[in-house]
Amino acid sequence: MSQVYADRRARLRARCAASGPAAALVSRPANVRYLTGACPPGAVLLLGAGTGAGTGTGTGTATDAGTDVLLCPRTPTGDPVEGRADESLRLTVLPPSAADPAVTAAELARKAGADTLAVEERHLSVTRYRAIGDAAPQLRLADLGTAVEQERLVKDEEEITCLRIAAEITDQALGELLESILVGRTERHLALELERRLVDHGADGPAFPTSVATGPHSGRGRHRPSDRRVEEGDFLSVCLGANYRGYRCEIGRTFVIGTTPADWQIELYDLVFAAQRAAREALTPGAAYSDVDRAARQILDAAGYGDGLAPSLGHGVGLEIEEDPQLSPSAMGKLDACVPVTVEPGVHLPGRGGVRIDDTLVVRQEADGGPELLTITTKELLAL
Amino acid sequence: MSQVYADRRARLRARCAASGPAAALVSRPANVRYLTGACPPGAVLLLGAGTGAGTGTGTGTATDAGTDVLLCPRTPTGDPVEGRADESLRLTVLPPSAADPAVTAAELARKAGADTLAVEERHLSVTRYRAIGDAAPQLRLADLGTAVEQERLVKDEEEITCLRIAAEITDQALGELLESILVGRTERHLALELERRLVDHGADGPAFPTSVATGPHSGRGRHRPSDRRVEEGDFLSVCLGANYRGYRCEIGRTFVIGTTPADWQIELYDLVFAAQRAAREALTPGAAYSDVDRAARQILDAAGYGDGLAPSLGHGVGLEIEEDPQLSPSAMGKLDACVPVTVEPGVHLPGRGGVRIDDTLVVRQEADGGPELLTITTKELLAL
Repeated sequence: MSQVYADRRARLRARCAASGPAAALVSRPANVRYLTGACPPGAVLLLGAGTGAGTGTGTGTATDAGTDVLLCPRTPTGDPVEGRADESLRLTVLPPSAADPAVTAAELARKAGADTLAVEERHLSVTRYRAIGDAAPQLRLADLGTAVEQERLVKDEEEITCLRIAAEITDQALGELLESILVGRTERHLALELERRLVDHGADGPAFPTSVATGPHSGRGRHRPSDRRVEEGDFLSVCLGANYRGYRCEIGRTFVIGTTPADWQIELYDLVFAAQRAAREALTPGAAYSDVDRAARQILDAAGYGDGLAPSLGHGVGLEIEEDPQLSPSAMGKLDACVPVTVEPGVHLPGRGGVRIDDTLVVRQEADGGPELLTITTKELLAL
Repeated sequence: MSQVYADRRARLRARCAASGPAAALVSRPANVRYLTGACPPGAVLLLGAGTGAGTGTGTGTATDAGTDVLLCPRTPTGDPVEGRADESLRLTVLPPSAADPAVTAAELARKAGADTLAVEERHLSVTRYRAIGDAAPQLRLADLGTAVEQERLVKDEEEITCLRIAAEITDQALGELLESILVGRTERHLALELERRLVDHGADGPAFPTSVATGPHSGRGRHRPSDRRVEEGDFLSVCLGANYRGYRCEIGRTFVIGTTPADWQIELYDLVFAAQRAAREALTPGAAYSDVDRAARQILDAAGYGDGLAPSLGHGVGLEIEEDPQLSPSAMGKLDACVPVTVEPGVHLPGRGGVRIDDTLVVRQEADGGPELLTITTKELLAL
């Protein structure tokens, strides 16, 4: 298992070496986890400049085994550090008195002979950046940019397995809720109930705060559950997902409460469903991100709902619930196989409510059966 | 109500003006909330350079009403923005196509005639900082430092009321759990149950991830609940807190499962209890942070547990669960009245478990009755 992480680090070191910098400092938690399998709170990863002290610039070929260091602060509450180390990764737990682990990492890189350190400028605060510069003024600081995020984009089969399990858990939790009595219960309680069921079925926790939206709230993305109770005739939209071994998926469904949906509810549902299906069908390797977005957007636009739409139709998922790519009109780039994304169009009519339908799918080649739907709960309009 | 926020902003503008900078950009969410009463995701607050375009440097006297702007991105999911605006605060919702609100704020500051912009270097990423510099190269960027955090340190009575209600909710949730059957249930389930009860009693949510630690896990700070089940003879330590209107408190208690605690359990409990009481009694206005820490630490140290202790005995609470001051050996500063802090010593014996006792209290003058205990659940060693 640890070989996976060693390989990922080797790829990143090679990538860094190609563009110059000798050592890299990874501080974004999901990136640290991706590269080491663990991320104790506050830990940072120093790549390519660990134990090779004085031997050169650590240009990061695969032979530089043992040159990565995971630096963990002893947490303020004295918890033991959970971290995985192997022959190619050294684990260093810093004493409570130590400065920022990023500063220690920079000093280590300098001592190991690196002359350049690439840091994650998108994640590092100005204060930490300055502290690194002050502690190791001889180091030239470069920007690692989104190098790790780009490595994370295409998932391997183990990662997809985690996402698949996360989706199974999510479907189970949602399925159980649908069998219970809903009228009279508050959005807040239903959301908590769903989160409890996620954990019951083996999730490490919810992938993001569960959203339950009733009546006039329905159809809004990431609605924060309120004390409004479910009523007869309501649209009910829920959005939830499990976190399984760090991997996060997402499902969103809209139901009608009562026996017979109103005509406007059926029409709106059919429309959003058609838009969502069009976008799902557009998920092929090579498709432009913006084309997937357009497949759904043009249907909703033609029906007169263009103005109120969310700026993006969906997004990548993985170790974070919202990662690259963004499926939006202005996004540049094309889908690859094995990229998991959400497809989540929605229409919300102020004062009346609305519909959102949200799936997590993995882009697959046509020959492999096309897009793999992970969240399989029915998308029929159920009356509950 | 909005006058409270206007006054806070006026104080901060005065503070900034005293040290030079003409406008200030607040991006840390808890700070934005403190100064406006709301914090839509991604919002930033521009102080002292809003509508006074061209009229000068906006040096921020209290007469500069209407010169603050809360800039909110339209969220990717199309949610409506929840923000409060009044005559002294303008709310600007940016279109989905807009750049970072911090960049827009910098451009606005420049247009309004500011020559200096103080930013929160501890919070702002290097990338955002550079984008601000690129967008408004004529602006001199300064560091706002922890100016807002320092304003937040001493709480007003409305804030303390929120904390008191948060503590009441927390005590209720914990009290109910103690009446239920615990043996055989997992840490994870008990934690979820506690969080559900917090919401039942009116919390907006948990103040932080609820910790439930049984047997060998007990006594560890911020232990992440596992699938271990409660057993007869276990120590059970729980740590939870409610978030009420943004204000967060914390309680930690340790219990024994079964009828009769073992001798070592009673001894360890009495010791931690004595240490916690000593620190609580040391909470007086004017007491050095480090002296409060020492009051507890020396007792545990004398008993031979000095090495394994957490680096800090407690911390401030408010809009964040961990804020200034830190009660630690190296902390510089003295307590003021109306500062709420936690007092949470613990001893964990590897393989056996341990004890943590954690209260939230407000520092008060002796004449006002001394420290006000917010979390009133009994600290007797209960056998459950």
